[in-house]
Amino acid sequence: MDEKVGIYQFYAESFQCDFTGRLSMGVLGNHILNVANMNASKNGFGITYLNEHNYTWVLSRLIIELDEMPAENTHFTIETWIESVLAYFSTRNFAIKNAEGKPIGYARTVWAMLDMNTRQPLNLLQLRDGIMTQFICEERTCPMQKVSKIRVTTDTPVMKHAIRYSDIDINIHMNSVRYIEHILDIFDMDKFREKRISRFEIAYIAEAHYGDTLIFYIDSDEATDTHQVEVRQQSGGEVTCRAKIHFE
Amino acid sequence: MDEKVGIYQFYAESFQCDFTGRLSMGVLGNHILNVANMNASKNGFGITYLNEHNYTWVLSRLIIELDEMPAENTHFTIETWIESVLAYFSTRNFAIKNAEGKPIGYARTVWAMLDMNTRQPLNLLQLRDGIMTQFICEERTCPMQKVSKIRVTTDTPVMKHAIRYSDIDINIHMNSVRYIEHILDIFDMDKFREKRISRFEIAYIAEAHYGDTLIFYIDSDEATDTHQVEVRQQSGGEVTCRAKIHFE
Repeated sequence: MDEKVGIYQFYAESFQCDFTGRLSMGVLGNHILNVANMNASKNGFGITYLNEHNYTWVLSRLIIELDEMPAENTHFTIETWIESVLAYFSTRNFAIKNAEGKPIGYARTVWAMLDMNTRQPLNLLQLRDGIMTQFICEERTCPMQKVSKIRVTTDTPVMKHAIRYSDIDINIHMNSVRYIEHILDIFDMDKFREKRISRFEIAYIAEAHYGDTLIFYIDSDEATDTHQVEVRQQSGGEVTCRAKIHFE
Repeated sequence: MDEKVGIYQFYAESFQCDFTGRLSMGVLGNHILNVANMNASKNGFGITYLNEHNYTWVLSRLIIELDEMPAENTHFTIETWIESVLAYFSTRNFAIKNAEGKPIGYARTVWAMLDMNTRQPLNLLQLRDGIMTQFICEERTCPMQKVSKIRVTTDTPVMKHAIRYSDIDINIHMNSVRYIEHILDIFDMDKFREKRISRFEIAYIAEAHYGDTLIFYIDSDEATDTHQVEVRQQSGGEVTCRAKIHFE
């Protein structure tokens, strides 16, 4: 099992915390994506290998469930393992543990691989003679709720954001983590003062680019404090991502 | 000299790079502030000590000069030392070195310390019986140009930004690093494709808070590709910071 689980150490720096003294969700998201990359690289299917073939990992979905967000100036650990590899999707899970080694949260990510020359998805079972299947870890469970359907019906925008330089990642798309930050910016600061996010789910649907403007729509169920968000491009109205946020 | 210079290791993660494949200036700024905090903490005048007394470090100025920004998936080091301690200001310098140990940039920061109860600056020479003066490092030089005057005369705004949740730091102010990101967002992406920032200078003048809107003004000298930026609060017009960016 050892080689199937990657373990990475982190420290919640002051400058990476929000005003409640806890790590920002965007920073945690960044760490999760980085851990995924580091672990994939260690096992032979990370960005460096992919770049040689002009392939790229595409993040389809990210779900984070937390009992507690790491507090300022504390150490924490992110463990990662592959739950499953199908032809066109792989699921990679994560456990977030506090300094005492107690799990304080879990995350699940779903990835596809794209051939950037043909723009076609690649069969993950065939990658490097099926290398990924060697790392499937059936010994670990990830006690999270199932992936849910995200559905937004409102047509009234709540926020607009013109995509600028700092939003753009190394693949020249809107950065996945920036989406998390922008989506949380829909909420009033009082929300974060009174509540905490117990589940954050985001589905990445279409790429957005520099020069586009993103329009944000939200349907809120106040009874359960669950909020569904849809982000559309201003030009054309294409949906670029959807998210669901549950506060407790 | 050993105890006077703090040395910290970093790695330029893909997700922290901009579309040119180099570390984002905001991420470098975050690392520099974090290194300052870690080194001050190690030496007895970091955030933890300050919190006990309800004191806080206030960043007054940050200047970064770079021959080269760390590239994606490379290791780099930030070294830090105190250049000087005056009654109300301390200067802390940084050297950024690539994986081969070659200096690729330098940074200088100027800090004051504030008593949050009285809102008055504290005499740094008197802090903990003058503890800071023990760490002044005269052996190291920081070959940077002098701090310059930043002067913006235009009255035509180029960008507005409503301060939201993700902009707010642990002290419930506009985050110092977010300013860097927003200021660079004034520039067109082509600018970063064709040129690189050789010097970035920012002076923090007044605090900005959640709910304020920031208005950005820029005076550009195209001959030298030097750009002076002023950021004002929409309500009241108070200047919150000024920056000067030189592209090469």
